Amino acid sequence: MRATRFFISTLKEAPADAEIVSHKLMMRAGMIKRLGSGIYNYMPMGLRIIRKVENIVREEMNRAGAIEMLMPVVQPAELWQETGRWDKMGPELMRVKDRHGRDYIIQPTSEEAITDVIRTEIRSYRQLPVNFYHIQTKFRDERRPRFGLMRGREFTMKDAYSFDRNVEGMQKSYEVMYDAYTRIFQRFGLEFRAVAADNGAIGGSGSHEFHVIADTGEDALVYCPTSDYAANMEAAEALPTQTSRPAAATALTKTATPGKAKCEDVAQLLNIPLETTVKSIVLAVDAEKDSGKAAQIWLLLLRGDHELNEVKAGKIAGMANYRFATEAEIVEHFGTKPGYLGPIGTQKPVNIVADRTVANMADFVCGANEADFHFTGANWGRDLPEPAVADLRNVVAGDPSPDGKGILAIQRGIEVGHVFQLGTRYSDDMKATFLDENGKPQLLQMGCYGIGVTRILGAAIEQNFDDKGIIWPTSIAPFEVVICPMGMDRSEAVKTEAESLYQALIAAGIDVILDDRGERPGAMFADWELIGVPHRIVIGDRGLKEGKLEYLGRRDTEASNVPVAEMLAFIQAKMVEK
Amino acid sequence: MRATRFFISTLKEAPADAEIVSHKLMMRAGMIKRLGSGIYNYMPMGLRIIRKVENIVREEMNRAGAIEMLMPVVQPAELWQETGRWDKMGPELMRVKDRHGRDYIIQPTSEEAITDVIRTEIRSYRQLPVNFYHIQTKFRDERRPRFGLMRGREFTMKDAYSFDRNVEGMQKSYEVMYDAYTRIFQRFGLEFRAVAADNGAIGGSGSHEFHVIADTGEDALVYCPTSDYAANMEAAEALPTQTSRPAAATALTKTATPGKAKCEDVAQLLNIPLETTVKSIVLAVDAEKDSGKAAQIWLLLLRGDHELNEVKAGKIAGMANYRFATEAEIVEHFGTKPGYLGPIGTQKPVNIVADRTVANMADFVCGANEADFHFTGANWGRDLPEPAVADLRNVVAGDPSPDGKGILAIQRGIEVGHVFQLGTRYSDDMKATFLDENGKPQLLQMGCYGIGVTRILGAAIEQNFDDKGIIWPTSIAPFEVVICPMGMDRSEAVKTEAESLYQALIAAGIDVILDDRGERPGAMFADWELIGVPHRIVIGDRGLKEGKLEYLGRRDTEASNVPVAEMLAFIQAKMVEK
Repeated sequence: MRATRFFISTLKEAPADAEIVSHKLMMRAGMIKRLGSGIYNYMPMGLRIIRKVENIVREEMNRAGAIEMLMPVVQPAELWQETGRWDKMGPELMRVKDRHGRDYIIQPTSEEAITDVIRTEIRSYRQLPVNFYHIQTKFRDERRPRFGLMRGREFTMKDAYSFDRNVEGMQKSYEVMYDAYTRIFQRFGLEFRAVAADNGAIGGSGSHEFHVIADTGEDALVYCPTSDYAANMEAAEALPTQTSRPAAATALTKTATPGKAKCEDVAQLLNIPLETTVKSIVLAVDAEKDSGKAAQIWLLLLRGDHELNEVKAGKIAGMANYRFATEAEIVEHFGTKPGYLGPIGTQKPVNIVADRTVANMADFVCGANEADFHFTGANWGRDLPEPAVADLRNVVAGDPSPDGKGILAIQRGIEVGHVFQLGTRYSDDMKATFLDENGKPQLLQMGCYGIGVTRILGAAIEQNFDDKGIIWPTSIAPFEVVICPMGMDRSEAVKTEAESLYQALIAAGIDVILDDRGERPGAMFADWELIGVPHRIVIGDRGLKEGKLEYLGRRDTEASNVPVAEMLAFIQAKMVEK
Repeated sequence: MRATRFFISTLKEAPADAEIVSHKLMMRAGMIKRLGSGIYNYMPMGLRIIRKVENIVREEMNRAGAIEMLMPVVQPAELWQETGRWDKMGPELMRVKDRHGRDYIIQPTSEEAITDVIRTEIRSYRQLPVNFYHIQTKFRDERRPRFGLMRGREFTMKDAYSFDRNVEGMQKSYEVMYDAYTRIFQRFGLEFRAVAADNGAIGGSGSHEFHVIADTGEDALVYCPTSDYAANMEAAEALPTQTSRPAAATALTKTATPGKAKCEDVAQLLNIPLETTVKSIVLAVDAEKDSGKAAQIWLLLLRGDHELNEVKAGKIAGMANYRFATEAEIVEHFGTKPGYLGPIGTQKPVNIVADRTVANMADFVCGANEADFHFTGANWGRDLPEPAVADLRNVVAGDPSPDGKGILAIQRGIEVGHVFQLGTRYSDDMKATFLDENGKPQLLQMGCYGIGVTRILGAAIEQNFDDKGIIWPTSIAPFEVVICPMGMDRSEAVKTEAESLYQALIAAGIDVILDDRGERPGAMFADWELIGVPHRIVIGDRGLKEGKLEYLGRRDTEASNVPVAEMLAFIQAKMVEK
């Protein structure tokens, strides 16, 4: 590509509404341009990157045996009513009526559409397994679109859907996709991590998220540096911090803690470690509608320095639909306001569940169910009954790894992929069956596998940038190499060498752009550093006199001189490294 | 591709709602699958064809200097309000509200979006000309979607937009696109014709349609077999059938024609050629609203066997917004009901315009403005004043070509492309300007260029099919070659040769599918004839014993035997022919 035949449009300053670095840099580099809230034009420079991402995804999906098709953007509401998602999905599902008043949605995902295809196309077990995917425009009406492509409303997603005859088949299809995703992210040249994710109602370990590692990521990823263990915060199992409970050593004592409603304040007042305190969280589960029963009240106990994991709370038997208790409910059951609550001597009976760590504590401090008082020296068995125990908390760095093979660490990530075992969630609602060997209809076992194509761009930048701009991995860079001729219009030698090298690189299958715009070197270099092309070749009269060209890798601090005759081989070697 | 790794799904019968051959065959061949009214899944077999069409379009657009980008499917209503199309476009414009109640449209085309990009990106004449295109999902809420991809609601279009500093530049950009379109349709391997189209309000000759020729096409294309002249019916100029008017030979006579209200019936009654009769068409132009003036009445005169061209009527000065007159208006101005109207002796004055052919007629027959009576022997100048003259009629086959170089012929076509000189239609409304050499803002001159990507599939089939199925041109076939091994599971020799030839064709860059499904020969052949793969190779034990393979081109009536060692070269030669 010649720059004069392309469209390059860089900005010195990012627009004021760009809050994060990837959004700022993509706007400044002329890769995206806002059309509306959360809706972007992909400018020529940005589209090249998207296409490279798509092609890597496509090649690896095909290699894994998935078959590409294309499902519509506008889909009939009836399908979404069949699965109940028409009602369940909130306003993020964009709904539209046609001229006849019929309801449609603009697809945020395609489980319904593919299941509709499959339920008529798949008749026999002989046709299984199958895996269909498409790379298509999606729309989610985010309440507050922001961060450019990271939380836009219109975006491009690759979504694949596997169908199998049984759970074992589904798990195998899932593994094939997991492996394909691993290859895809490796080929992107990004640092990434696959983490086990919570599987919601499906249960089992059938869900993993793929995250691009970045300090700015919104998700906390839990992993064990000395083993394979990795999960997202929701799913990461927290073991007790001590494996057995010490014997009680001190007496239960009601202690005045006036105005100290938080564990931190109590610990400070009493001059004790925060790790000896227990905090009380009160949740409620409403009785069935019109059952005449009041809400059930639950008291969850966590060590003072730990945080409740709300997903884990929802997994306690009977608590699937919990909510936080109201102040009135708390006062009714505990006889006092929040801040001084505890498991000993509640006004009315409540269901008590202790986190694993709390269950192994002795001589702990907790609220006394009386304003401005806490108990110290509380002990299970002696002062109150042994509790029900569950994993209730978020893990923290330094916790033991659940696989027993080390100590957990935490890093930040940006979710860009998700693989999921759906089981019969959709095939059941939509009556998607096949005939087994005995001619008996069986529900199809389904998996789904998404990659946020346009989100990859944002995530890659959050991971790879410096004060000059973006640093693309070679595999998804808009161009692999840029040739910057100095004074192409003045020097015949420069022009000849630039053209010759340009043609040689093209012939070698390298994606090169020749900057023939005639910009001054400073402006030219600044543009390509901002855009983030990973390999730069400068051609100047001075170097040519010595038979040399200048090479600078985007992460290099110093340029190196390469003999003219060796530059092609030099660049080809860089391409192999990529 | 191996058939067992792909998804092949053929039907013996097309669904009942498929009315035309391309719709039936695409459904039967498993290329598309209906999701909703006018909304189709592109199944794997269909998507391959779409991608080939897209790639040819993309390569030629790039070669012509157009730059690819991608504009959003969902676009803010504000932009469409700026150009007035929010109001002007009827219910075919799909409108949608987001969660905040803001209006959006699902794009049917992108003039507004690209002009919004351009008005901020293009600042100086130095950046001109530019031409951006995208290949994107479009939506038009057709009142009655039908004919599969030919008149669907969701479809894929390539739309390009050029911007120039002046009209000459725009015309040059237009020519570049016209030439690119010609190359594109040549590469598709389809018989096509570019015809001049009516340019609406813009005027000039700045619009051409590209049609795929097919007997089933909805449009009539006018062309001169011995010259370059070609236009669609709306735009084709009709010359007078005789170049000068003969002298009057008979007297004006009021003749009883009881109950004969049509020219055909009058000619039969009087035993005269239909070509000697003149028919009267009464149109009305409403006075400006609230002007207090009645509608203006126009009488258009056409030879009895000719048809009114409504577009041409609208080009008569003062008639841009005409409508057909009501019966009350006719009675008021002519003193009689339709059927016996004519230019002689109207009750009130009317504006008379004669078609060019009528203006050169003598001794003609026309209504006498009295029920059941016609005039015979009517003559201009003698019996009524010389009329205003205009081209008012549709051409017919046999008419002289407007370029004077032959006789016009008519054929049917399917519109699949349109190039258009827009001028300042959008740049004016949206204030899209650039600074000229003098630093003065000037409106951008715009052109737009569309190709209906998915419609190409339907059009190609309407042109190329037989009773067995589709006949794809090689360049857009889902696969170029199919290898059909006979008894691959039984014969090691067949299997070995099939694998070897399959690998050799892949290595030669040929898009081949190996049918390894193990179907019986009859079912296998029927599938590939239905799908329309242009080149078929059959491998069987009998042939192999003689060192031969069987080749059949999709249009061939008889197979030919090709020595095993020569098959690769044989197929490569076929690829060059394509």
